[in-house]
Amino acid sequence: MTSSRSSESIGKAAVLLSGGLDSMVTAALALEQGYEVHALSIDYGQRHVLELESASRIASKLNLARHIIIALDLRAFGGSALTDDIDVPKGGVGTDIPVTYVPARNLVFLSLTTAFAESAGAHDVFIGVNALDYSGYPDCRPEFIASFAETARLGTKEGAEGRPFAIRTPLQHLTKADIARECARLGLDPSWSWSCYDPTGENLACGKCDSCRLRRKGFAEAGIVDSTTYAD
Amino acid sequence: MTSSRSSESIGKAAVLLSGGLDSMVTAALALEQGYEVHALSIDYGQRHVLELESASRIASKLNLARHIIIALDLRAFGGSALTDDIDVPKGGVGTDIPVTYVPARNLVFLSLTTAFAESAGAHDVFIGVNALDYSGYPDCRPEFIASFAETARLGTKEGAEGRPFAIRTPLQHLTKADIARECARLGLDPSWSWSCYDPTGENLACGKCDSCRLRRKGFAEAGIVDSTTYAD
Repeated sequence: MTSSRSSESIGKAAVLLSGGLDSMVTAALALEQGYEVHALSIDYGQRHVLELESASRIASKLNLARHIIIALDLRAFGGSALTDDIDVPKGGVGTDIPVTYVPARNLVFLSLTTAFAESAGAHDVFIGVNALDYSGYPDCRPEFIASFAETARLGTKEGAEGRPFAIRTPLQHLTKADIARECARLGLDPSWSWSCYDPTGENLACGKCDSCRLRRKGFAEAGIVDSTTYAD
Repeated sequence: MTSSRSSESIGKAAVLLSGGLDSMVTAALALEQGYEVHALSIDYGQRHVLELESASRIASKLNLARHIIIALDLRAFGGSALTDDIDVPKGGVGTDIPVTYVPARNLVFLSLTTAFAESAGAHDVFIGVNALDYSGYPDCRPEFIASFAETARLGTKEGAEGRPFAIRTPLQHLTKADIARECARLGLDPSWSWSCYDPTGENLACGKCDSCRLRRKGFAEAGIVDSTTYAD
C-alpha cells in the first residue's frame, strides 16, 4: 500500500471503519482515489470486539491519517443478536431481515460519521454497504443512502451553507466475490479484517455464521485465498 | 402532573430528553397526548452536565415509564463551544449559525432516538426542536425533520416493513413565550429544567449566554415567573 499522506491528496474523507472486510476495502479505495482518510470506528458493545482490534490494525497497516474509536453503548437499548444474548443464526442467508439486525444501525453510524466528517473538515463520507450480499438489512439499500445524503445536507451547517456531504458507497453494486478481488488487487491481507459474528473461545472465526459464510463464499467464488484461520 | 402509567396509553413514544425546558415541555405534551413515554438522554461530553441531572429529575417528576442515559463522547470529534474549550458567546442571538453548533447534532440524536424507539417498540419519536427561536441551527428546521422521517422509514426494519416512525415536533412553531405558557399550563416547574450553556462555579445559570437569554426573554414575554435562580 502507498501512504495516505501523499502530497497529492484531493481532500479529506471520513470513512466508517468497522474492521470488517468491506470497510477495509472501502478505506483502501478511498486512499487509492487520493483522499486523506480519517477513519471512525464505533464501539457499540458488539460481542465481536475483535472487529475493533481489526479496525486499529487496518488503520495502522494502511497508514491512515487519523483513526478514532468512539464508544456508544447500544446494549442499553437491547434488541439484536449482535449486542444481546440472542443466539447468532447459522442456518444460512435468507431474504428476511435477520435477527442480527441492529436497530437503525447504519442510520446511527452514518450520522456519526457525518458529524465526524463535519468536525474534520471532510465532505466525503465513505461507508462499505453493499446491496447484493446485504443479508436483508434495509439500511444498506441505495435508496436509504440517497435519502440520508439529502437529510445530512439539510441538517448540517456545511450542507446548509452549500457544501453538502457526498455519501460514497464504492461497494454498493459489488458481490462478495468482487470485493474479494478488490481486496487482492489493492494488496490487502484479508486476515487484517474481521467478519465473524460468533468467534470461538480461542478468538478464531467460527466459519459458520452468516457473515463467515458470505465471506468464505465470496473468496471461494473469486478463487482467492482468504488468509483468515477458521475454527472448522 | 398525572402519571404516565395510566391504563389509557395510546402506545409508546420515544422522547429525546436533553433536560432543557423544550425537552421537558415536549415530554409532558407526549404524556398529555396519552403516550407511555420512554425517554432518552445523551451524555455527549457537554460542559453543562447539569442538563443530564435535570433530565433525570424531569423523568422522575413526570413519572416516565423509562429513562435511559446513553454515553457518546463527541469531544473526540471536537468542533463546538458546547464540548470544546471555545468561549461561549454572550453577544446576543444573531441569524448566523452560532459556534455553539454541535456538528450534525440533531441528525445524530434523532438517529439514536429512532434506534431507541425501534428497540422499545415505539413508533412515535418526539423531539423538542423549534423553528422560531432556533438560534440558527439548521437541524431544527421543518424540512430537515421531514427528510429525516423519510430516511428513517427507508433505513429501519420497522419502516421497511410498513410501520414507519412519526417524528413529532410539538414545539416546532412555538415561540419561547409560547413554550413558557405551555410549561405553566402543564403544571411544570421551570427550574426542573436546565438551559444554561455556561453555569457558574456554584452551578447557577449564568443568565447571559444565548440559551439563558432566549429562555428569560420567553418567560418575560409570557409574563410567567421562571423559578430558576440566575447568577445575575
